[in-house]
Amino acid sequence: MRRQGEIAIIGVGLIGGSIGLALRSKGRAKRVVGIGRDRGRLEEAKRLGAIDDFTTDPAEGVAEAEIAVVCTPVTRIVEDILVAARSGPDSILVTDAGSTKSRIVEEVGRDPRGRACFVGAHPIAGSERQGAAHGRADLFEGRSCVLTPTPITPPDRLERARQFWAGLGCRVFEFDPAEHDRRLALTSHLPHVVAAALAGSIDPDLLPLAAGAYRDGTRVAEADAALWAGIFVENRRPVLEALDRFEAQLADFREALEADDPGRLVEWWDAAKGHRRRFGPPPDSLPV
Amino acid sequence: MRRQGEIAIIGVGLIGGSIGLALRSKGRAKRVVGIGRDRGRLEEAKRLGAIDDFTTDPAEGVAEAEIAVVCTPVTRIVEDILVAARSGPDSILVTDAGSTKSRIVEEVGRDPRGRACFVGAHPIAGSERQGAAHGRADLFEGRSCVLTPTPITPPDRLERARQFWAGLGCRVFEFDPAEHDRRLALTSHLPHVVAAALAGSIDPDLLPLAAGAYRDGTRVAEADAALWAGIFVENRRPVLEALDRFEAQLADFREALEADDPGRLVEWWDAAKGHRRRFGPPPDSLPV
Repeated sequence: MRRQGEIAIIGVGLIGGSIGLALRSKGRAKRVVGIGRDRGRLEEAKRLGAIDDFTTDPAEGVAEAEIAVVCTPVTRIVEDILVAARSGPDSILVTDAGSTKSRIVEEVGRDPRGRACFVGAHPIAGSERQGAAHGRADLFEGRSCVLTPTPITPPDRLERARQFWAGLGCRVFEFDPAEHDRRLALTSHLPHVVAAALAGSIDPDLLPLAAGAYRDGTRVAEADAALWAGIFVENRRPVLEALDRFEAQLADFREALEADDPGRLVEWWDAAKGHRRRFGPPPDSLPV
Repeated sequence: MRRQGEIAIIGVGLIGGSIGLALRSKGRAKRVVGIGRDRGRLEEAKRLGAIDDFTTDPAEGVAEAEIAVVCTPVTRIVEDILVAARSGPDSILVTDAGSTKSRIVEEVGRDPRGRACFVGAHPIAGSERQGAAHGRADLFEGRSCVLTPTPITPPDRLERARQFWAGLGCRVFEFDPAEHDRRLALTSHLPHVVAAALAGSIDPDLLPLAAGAYRDGTRVAEADAALWAGIFVENRRPVLEALDRFEAQLADFREALEADDPGRLVEWWDAAKGHRRRFGPPPDSLPV
């Protein structure tokens, strides 16, 4: 795969920082420019080797970029995508790492420059931690990345977006934005709601009696509240539908337990276990 | 701490096997005898170094035991405790590793021999895996173990039970059986219900789009269905109450999201996160 020119990363936190580390460790970009609002964090990202240089001026940062990757919180992402689309070279590819896609893709698509250069993306990898200091060059290795092209997405940009995300080690999937949002509401947003609801249910003074099931089941409740509140609000309807499904599962469990019916509890558990056993790395042949 | 005499382990699976490995690796018992119904599994446990010898006859297995530890599923545990209490020497200490305590302690307490030698225990450690092959000598190191003495528990047996579980590396807590069950319904049984309900909510064909939150949030759904159905039925009322608390958390989330209120979502999340941040190894000074 050819070496890319300059790549601008807008928002150099855990995700943006990991993209920078991956690009630089693989030697896949001529230069990686970090763009952000907080100079201290940008300096740290540079010190960590995630970016070659940085600026707090987005227009300046994307001026010579072949690709701009926008990794800011979903509540701010459209604005940042449009700045990159308008200030970058005509040939720029703008892509993002937002956890929701429908509203972002729709709003960007209403802008002529946005429409001409944007391909929505969501690399499905992360952590409950924040900041480039928790970034990892291999964060995307073997992980799925969903691209969300629409009928108006320019085919050349789509192809470049495929190359870019695959170059970071991702297995690339493509869905329309609404389909992405429905699926991710179940596979990612619901597990986050559940982790926080579980953590919220258990008083801290009981925690000496908690072990692995609690530890793992609540891990992501340590993630950032504003980030996740933003995702839930962006993806409100699909998240509520995912919650309906989950509550129906709980209702089945409750009914079986109230009926004191071990046989039904075993069936209920085994159905869930059957799902879980099919979890593993994404398949090698990709429905791209 | 003094070296103990012969120790009988009834049920040599993940927990029983780990107890055997710990006892033998620490040289804390003169001899460790495994007791079970499946000769193949007992042979494997011996090969793995978890026991010195084995028998499928419980009466024979406990005949010279200083301590018998019963690690069978909660649905069978009372029966196994009583066999050990009746067939062991007068001086035997019988303790167990059952995940629930009220019914077990109550039923054993109705038997004169049971009452004379039993101290209920629950070492809070485990895994979604089964069998001695997944056992680990350090499974209990630094983990909490709850003893559930009652006013009729003989003080000398209680003291010996403290020594035994502390000798395996556990930090020993004491609660009455009902209090244990209420607390564990929240810290362990609820997280298991939630993991299975989450796994059950997500169709396997979506799993290529799942990542760490799903992986960790559903891990324990791979545990054994019959084992957990038994625990839920044993601890029905406290589990249903824990589920009430959890569903109230979900209802708060739903209300905030339906109201499209990011501020309330942030507050909700931060309260949960505040709980989670207090999770860690049990304190050094123990409320024994």
